[in-house]
Amino acid sequence: MKLTSYVAGAWVEGQDEGKLVVDAVRGEPVCRVSSAGIDFAKVVQYARDVAGPKLRAMTFIERAAMLKALAKHLMTKKEDFYTLSFKTGTTRADAWPDVEGGIGTVFSFASLVNREFPNDVVMVEGEMERLSQQGTFVGRHILTSKPGVAVHINAYNFPIWGMLEKIAPSLAAGVPVIVKPATQTAYLTQACVREMVDSGLLPEGAVQLICGSTGDLLDHLNEQDVVTFTGSASTGKMLRNHPNLLANSVPFNMEADSLNCAILGQSVKQGDPEFDLFVKEVVREMTTKAGQKCTAIRRVIVPEESIDAVIDAISARLKKAVMGDPELDGVRLGALVSTDQVDDVRDRVEQLSAEAAIVFGGDEAVALEGLEAGSGAFYPATLLRCDNPLQADRIHSVEAFGPVATVMPYQSLEDAVTLARMGKGSLVGSLFTHDPEEARTVILGAAPWHGRMLVLDRDCAKESTGHGSPLANLVHGGPGRAGGGEELGGARAVKHYLQRTALQGSPTSLMGVTREYHAGAKTFSDGIHPFKKHFEALQIGETLVTHRRTVTEADIVNFGCISGDHFYAHFDAIAAKDSFFGERVAHGYFVISAAAGMFVDPNPGPVIANYGLENLRFVEPVPPGTTIQAKLSVKRKIKKPRREGEKPNGVVVWAVEVTNQEGEPVALYDILTLVVRQDED
Amino acid sequence: MKLTSYVAGAWVEGQDEGKLVVDAVRGEPVCRVSSAGIDFAKVVQYARDVAGPKLRAMTFIERAAMLKALAKHLMTKKEDFYTLSFKTGTTRADAWPDVEGGIGTVFSFASLVNREFPNDVVMVEGEMERLSQQGTFVGRHILTSKPGVAVHINAYNFPIWGMLEKIAPSLAAGVPVIVKPATQTAYLTQACVREMVDSGLLPEGAVQLICGSTGDLLDHLNEQDVVTFTGSASTGKMLRNHPNLLANSVPFNMEADSLNCAILGQSVKQGDPEFDLFVKEVVREMTTKAGQKCTAIRRVIVPEESIDAVIDAISARLKKAVMGDPELDGVRLGALVSTDQVDDVRDRVEQLSAEAAIVFGGDEAVALEGLEAGSGAFYPATLLRCDNPLQADRIHSVEAFGPVATVMPYQSLEDAVTLARMGKGSLVGSLFTHDPEEARTVILGAAPWHGRMLVLDRDCAKESTGHGSPLANLVHGGPGRAGGGEELGGARAVKHYLQRTALQGSPTSLMGVTREYHAGAKTFSDGIHPFKKHFEALQIGETLVTHRRTVTEADIVNFGCISGDHFYAHFDAIAAKDSFFGERVAHGYFVISAAAGMFVDPNPGPVIANYGLENLRFVEPVPPGTTIQAKLSVKRKIKKPRREGEKPNGVVVWAVEVTNQEGEPVALYDILTLVVRQDED
Repeated sequence: MKLTSYVAGAWVEGQDEGKLVVDAVRGEPVCRVSSAGIDFAKVVQYARDVAGPKLRAMTFIERAAMLKALAKHLMTKKEDFYTLSFKTGTTRADAWPDVEGGIGTVFSFASLVNREFPNDVVMVEGEMERLSQQGTFVGRHILTSKPGVAVHINAYNFPIWGMLEKIAPSLAAGVPVIVKPATQTAYLTQACVREMVDSGLLPEGAVQLICGSTGDLLDHLNEQDVVTFTGSASTGKMLRNHPNLLANSVPFNMEADSLNCAILGQSVKQGDPEFDLFVKEVVREMTTKAGQKCTAIRRVIVPEESIDAVIDAISARLKKAVMGDPELDGVRLGALVSTDQVDDVRDRVEQLSAEAAIVFGGDEAVALEGLEAGSGAFYPATLLRCDNPLQADRIHSVEAFGPVATVMPYQSLEDAVTLARMGKGSLVGSLFTHDPEEARTVILGAAPWHGRMLVLDRDCAKESTGHGSPLANLVHGGPGRAGGGEELGGARAVKHYLQRTALQGSPTSLMGVTREYHAGAKTFSDGIHPFKKHFEALQIGETLVTHRRTVTEADIVNFGCISGDHFYAHFDAIAAKDSFFGERVAHGYFVISAAAGMFVDPNPGPVIANYGLENLRFVEPVPPGTTIQAKLSVKRKIKKPRREGEKPNGVVVWAVEVTNQEGEPVALYDILTLVVRQDED
Repeated sequence: MKLTSYVAGAWVEGQDEGKLVVDAVRGEPVCRVSSAGIDFAKVVQYARDVAGPKLRAMTFIERAAMLKALAKHLMTKKEDFYTLSFKTGTTRADAWPDVEGGIGTVFSFASLVNREFPNDVVMVEGEMERLSQQGTFVGRHILTSKPGVAVHINAYNFPIWGMLEKIAPSLAAGVPVIVKPATQTAYLTQACVREMVDSGLLPEGAVQLICGSTGDLLDHLNEQDVVTFTGSASTGKMLRNHPNLLANSVPFNMEADSLNCAILGQSVKQGDPEFDLFVKEVVREMTTKAGQKCTAIRRVIVPEESIDAVIDAISARLKKAVMGDPELDGVRLGALVSTDQVDDVRDRVEQLSAEAAIVFGGDEAVALEGLEAGSGAFYPATLLRCDNPLQADRIHSVEAFGPVATVMPYQSLEDAVTLARMGKGSLVGSLFTHDPEEARTVILGAAPWHGRMLVLDRDCAKESTGHGSPLANLVHGGPGRAGGGEELGGARAVKHYLQRTALQGSPTSLMGVTREYHAGAKTFSDGIHPFKKHFEALQIGETLVTHRRTVTEADIVNFGCISGDHFYAHFDAIAAKDSFFGERVAHGYFVISAAAGMFVDPNPGPVIANYGLENLRFVEPVPPGTTIQAKLSVKRKIKKPRREGEKPNGVVVWAVEVTNQEGEPVALYDILTLVVRQDED
């Protein structure tokens, strides 16, 4: 009956009676939750001493593989999570973003870390910064794992996704986590953590779980730790104010619920596809998870002339959204998480009523499908209407965290933007229009107040993931009221757990630290053509200096004939004289083709393919008579996990410098090759 | 005598007596400083209403031009700033990083914004994110100006640089600023602001200045504003705790002084160039600005066997550093900013003495060059030695903000790293070694505690900017004790004043908002070849679909002959059969050359040159018999200010898609061209 926490390698029960959690649908007891007796100093120390060193010894790519295995394992257990989810009041459809969306987020991070991060413990960011005239002093930003712990304090509405979307980037960064789920739904989080621990796929201590209060946990954190918080603005403010966090400048990332808006474009008329999309999306956001989403639409902003039609259409759809036992197939609207939450929503609706009239719902006595009236934590879908939204305050600040939204009219696009801004910072806002200029006006006006904005139209509706869904590769979080934080957003999410350091020194020192070649660094060769070497044998800085080739007028003619490129700068001596170049010059593509001709080894060998090219700049023109030479240096190596049915290989990026007879660069670029590995892992 | 503030378009005097500021060298009164009577609500509103809209109406490129003009103007006034600087106690050499370093930072931002930001009010960041299978629903991150105000609260030690390094990125971002300099040196900041205002180069209200207390200024900020603070950890903590800033999630960036270290590598022996470089740098950091720099070296970490030699060498050099009137040529060590600061340093040295012995200096009765003994705010260069640094506490936490440092020994590299970490977060650390492997060990060990790290060796010493100098294109700020903030760092600095928003929708909607073509967006053509059009006439999304070309075996042969590239995948039918491709294929460079042959218009025209290529990926192989076709779309246009002696032009980036007869892409890339403009500005 007591929900255990997982700390310092053991499942432990709280040392007092704890808080009773009941089933949201039927009110039956589920468990008691308490963290009393847990030694939080020990929990933090365990993460630091036991898990941290193991995680940091892994490379980013190895951590990505660990996450992928974890996601695969959790996916096999999803039915258990769905079953448990019903107790929280959600339908199966509601639970999908939590369960499969959560596990999918782990897959996404596994894949993006594998794609964008190095097979090393340090990551370089951005290009080399030239800090001096001669190039002997250069700079580079590097990112290293914070040798601390990430404390994640989560909200009740996404017990699985809310945990996994934060765990995945933390672990990818090499930082162990301490998860503190909200008490009401901690049992579902716990079930998922239990699977993670039992799987043995993570180093021991990489994930610890606190069910119940965090006690004095935050007092034990220091400058190498990170705290994230998802939940109400008031709790967040209190935590952010914590003296120890402030004293140690502990990064604190906050994501609070906000009064998100959906705007119907002024160009959209009844009958347009965007009108129907708008109505559907508002209803979907009101009913999914019974409106208990930080991203749900609370403010429905519509052209004055359409307000009645919008309200009618929304009401008609809401009427069909059956409320009741979430386990039943026909039920669309489940329960809130608790009767306390129902009380809270009721109170907020009352506050809103001072500025807005209820035009649908509000009557709590409605029948429940499959349940007796009065069972569980149900609150009906409720729509309000406010006709003076520019003069109103509560509709922009009081959030009823349930199936509740307020419709309001606007007269001009400028007013629509002003209304959007009156939320004082939101996680997301959406605009429904098929007019790109209207989109530009509204989006640029409202964007500074939003972490995410969606433009929905007939072209993207079918594939759209909708207003309410944060995605792994886009930032989640908003300014002001929404907490001012930033989560997800692809590589950014991982970087929240890494320290950025500007590194300065000679190109050779920097190459030593970053294991990436920088122009100007010491190069070397053992005389063997690098295309004859396997991935493992290639050394960073290893360089091939090719033979030379004099570019002639015949080359220009032949290259023009084969390519069909008879641009005047190559062929019209009169026009070329007046041009940018002052004379006929060779094709840039000839220069890089000839360079390949000089550096490629024709024999079959470990270099399988040149699959791409980056950062090409034609620095100096190449007129006939120029003698060119190429220098090819191993710049970066990325060992990739073996893929099914492929020879094990890795990516080798080569820095290419083509110079003229004066030694001046004429073309600079990086080429990307696939090179066979000899090891089999 | 009263130092005026510049608020709401007027220079105003404080309404009370204010605080007396005296010359640091001779103790003579300089001015009285007070902000009493200023209506801070009005100051904030003025920035919002008057300056904000004007700045936000300018594009990034226009703001860059404004900054460049401002920097040019300030450079003509530098001698006035140098003269005034003497009163703050600094020598001319000390003032260089403040005066010319400060103005140089404005130039740097002008140049990097011009290079990296668009000629628009919105910036896109990163690549398009594909969010759906069919590509009808995509995402992109955009950055827009925060429609608020930036409040910069600065330290006394860099009255000009400290202001300009923050003003430049704020104004580049389109955000007006309110500058609050430290009282002791506010007169120098004020002189610089006066030049900025008088120049008329900035929109009115873009910069306001508060000399004296900030009163209730912070109470008037909201979710669209930003506060930055440079100064002591204790003041910073108090400000960060401000209820209104917390309630509105106002971003607060803090940069506090820290106990920065310099480490002499274990591989370095007496007589090595790195040994001398180390000694020189420590002395330079102790004496420059009389050690009043947040980045100064406080902890000198050396191999045990070298500690005596290091102390001897440092002491010998310090002996030659003449202290006295900073206006005199031979003087190396000027005054501290005030006698209060001297008292503070004396007190801290006493605290340090409990753990470390004074081995040089400490005697305040030394003679002063050109001044009577006992004049002004002088404190002598003082070196301490601590032999048990791993057991010590104060030497890692108590900072004497003057010409003071502590030398300490280490036995292993691991201990050296541990000592570096004991500062609990620093702005900068430096390592002196010529061994890249030693560099990797120390840097990766210490980097999580540092915002910047420098590896100094014989290769970069001549061009190095040194331990103490933050640079515009590298991040400045460190974790923990150093405040946990991040300033500078190139484009990052500007982004602190922009809101990042994840934008989702159809490629066409996103093109409307960002004015950048995305694959899948609606394209169009008016039948005129786009190479015949000037910069202004080209429209985003305008597309040329070329004729087709069947690639034959003869093409492969001819291309191999002209390029010299006889790689087996192109020429050896037997090896090619077993290869990645399964058959002979055309050269990738042939495909892009042939594409150019199809899309280039040979006549002289507005397109001057293809100067680069980005993001090339060879997606599918092209065996003989493949019929290719190219599609060239205007992706992005960047109008550049006219350069001396050049025709006005702009950068046009074209998205190129080469497809096969099935319509599948075989190569995708962007080409960069210069295109002539018809307007003359």
